[in-house]
Amino acid sequence: MKLKAIEKLMEKFKNRKEQLYKQKEEGRKVFGMFCAYVPIEIILAANAIPVGLCGGKNDTIPIAEEDLPRNLCPLIKSSYGFKKAKSCPYFEASDIVIGETTCEGKKKMFELMEKMVPMHIMHLPHMKDEDSLKIWIKEVEKLKELVEKETGNKITEEKLKEAVDKVNKLRELFYKLYELRKNKPAPIKGLDVLKLFQFAYLLDIDDTIEILEDLIKELEERVKKGEGYDGKRILITGCPMVAGNNKIVELIEEVGGVVVGEESCTGTRYFENFVEGYSIEDIAKRYFKIPCACRYKNDERIENIKRLVKELDVDGVVYYTLQYCHTFNIEGKKVEDALKEEGIPIIRIETDYSESDREQLKTRLEAFIEMI
Amino acid sequence: MKLKAIEKLMEKFKNRKEQLYKQKEEGRKVFGMFCAYVPIEIILAANAIPVGLCGGKNDTIPIAEEDLPRNLCPLIKSSYGFKKAKSCPYFEASDIVIGETTCEGKKKMFELMEKMVPMHIMHLPHMKDEDSLKIWIKEVEKLKELVEKETGNKITEEKLKEAVDKVNKLRELFYKLYELRKNKPAPIKGLDVLKLFQFAYLLDIDDTIEILEDLIKELEERVKKGEGYDGKRILITGCPMVAGNNKIVELIEEVGGVVVGEESCTGTRYFENFVEGYSIEDIAKRYFKIPCACRYKNDERIENIKRLVKELDVDGVVYYTLQYCHTFNIEGKKVEDALKEEGIPIIRIETDYSESDREQLKTRLEAFIEMI
Repeated sequence: MKLKAIEKLMEKFKNRKEQLYKQKEEGRKVFGMFCAYVPIEIILAANAIPVGLCGGKNDTIPIAEEDLPRNLCPLIKSSYGFKKAKSCPYFEASDIVIGETTCEGKKKMFELMEKMVPMHIMHLPHMKDEDSLKIWIKEVEKLKELVEKETGNKITEEKLKEAVDKVNKLRELFYKLYELRKNKPAPIKGLDVLKLFQFAYLLDIDDTIEILEDLIKELEERVKKGEGYDGKRILITGCPMVAGNNKIVELIEEVGGVVVGEESCTGTRYFENFVEGYSIEDIAKRYFKIPCACRYKNDERIENIKRLVKELDVDGVVYYTLQYCHTFNIEGKKVEDALKEEGIPIIRIETDYSESDREQLKTRLEAFIEMI
Repeated sequence: MKLKAIEKLMEKFKNRKEQLYKQKEEGRKVFGMFCAYVPIEIILAANAIPVGLCGGKNDTIPIAEEDLPRNLCPLIKSSYGFKKAKSCPYFEASDIVIGETTCEGKKKMFELMEKMVPMHIMHLPHMKDEDSLKIWIKEVEKLKELVEKETGNKITEEKLKEAVDKVNKLRELFYKLYELRKNKPAPIKGLDVLKLFQFAYLLDIDDTIEILEDLIKELEERVKKGEGYDGKRILITGCPMVAGNNKIVELIEEVGGVVVGEESCTGTRYFENFVEGYSIEDIAKRYFKIPCACRYKNDERIENIKRLVKELDVDGVVYYTLQYCHTFNIEGKKVEDALKEEGIPIIRIETDYSESDREQLKTRLEAFIEMI
């Protein structure tokens, strides 16, 4: 029961490196990025390419641990290791890498990474108040200046409008995908959707849009025919799972669950909320709203989780923390308390990229899914 | 070879709880605080009392781990546990607790703590640029409003001037203490100085000033007589060591070292830089300069360490990280590289509040001190 659109996704991913280097040869600049907070509209409007960076593999962690503490989040260590080992094509293609002050691990890692690659750090404030928003708007303006300077292309109003419409189109398609996942049986596996989010950071946006359009048609067909996946319906919430890091979703679907939603940077935090207007301020405002645990008082996230549980008819929530990620880990307590109050089953998992805890996690997830 | 001033310090500390509650009964408000970034001038100018909060004991960690992750800095867990157990007199005396967005562990812990005690969080931005300074100035203004409202006392220009002069006086005395520690032999043990810094957060400022004045006279006598402590001269740099957490200094001085300086929040970051003027902005600027690893690009700290090594004629540097403190841990790499380049011996220690690693640390520190 393979989806053609997912086969196309894998094909596009396989060819992405070649395509990216070709685009680069044609004179387009490449901006690497770590995080869903980077407003890709700005980059696209200058005819440049935003691309996510590798950070989902265990292999590059040992080389990173020569410089970084061992007890640091695997995503941060893996990213740093990829750059140090020069083994990530997206890193190597990047003319400049955009970092942000989301978590302190990344913030301080960037200080070491900038010896290896030109970097630009965006200041995302801790708070969500008006003064913090003003800082963030300025940061997006600074990014615009940087991108214009780096590419030599002026970001005109027209170009910006085009880019905003395009990324909003992408968001609309992800919303549609989520609409379709409300159905029972779920028309698509969580693992396929995870790959879609992971590769959306890496692929050319036009390709991602094309794949999503195909996928939605296919899923509509499935829904009509009542085809899909039964099983306990799981919402994942927490840290991002970047390409290579599929362990938890694989395990959930091995033991009889089906992931129907992801409150994650590889999930709703990637696409929710449209840019409502065509100014830099409008763009900044949309990104500022992303409910990441790195922000002080992030209660919108809890509301989102509760809403998603209802909308997607979820049986249980898997709270996923990358080891040593303090923000998501501590916020987990608030989320757990809030869900328990509503009688929503939740299990909290903290793990890294190693395979050593796979069996143990499988046992825990199996018990959770049997119980709910 | 006991110092009378240190005996007085211990005496004052023993009576502090009683004194604080008496001051409270007289109608003075108490503002609890975690961090050297809180501008105590504002609190003093309203005839209120700034007081540091407990967080240096292992005993309160288990109760904290009911809510907080185990792999979180012991200082954060211990503080939270003290409040939860209601076992810290300074916490219990506090009418309001001032937090700040220094590290993400604290930032997110505050979200849980505020269910137990009224809190006010100051937004310390990640960056050191002008826009961030503007935010910080506003935060100090907001603190002034809060303190005025809470105490019912107007912070007049005159009151503020008085408070600034007083805290500057305290800073001047700590500078003098550091001047005296340049001597060989060192006229005072590191453990005594550590206690002085720890209790400076807790005692009435007038008492601390009195003790420091006495101490300086005593130390001047010692220097004249050539009395003091020989041994390898050690600079400690890194995380704060709040009251109760003396392990590393004890160990260094057990194995033949003498701590002659602390680049720490219980050290230079507590007193360096005067407030230069009497406005809120002048006060904000002084605190904004504190070179904590929580800030992005904190190279002033490295320069300070190199300067202190020279000024205090240091033989070796002990880099101290509280377990899971990402910012100081990662910045340690930059500090280590910078010191090695200058041929300054450095050892990096990461530990928590348990006693289980005492012997292992002792062996490492002994080897380091023999080697330098």
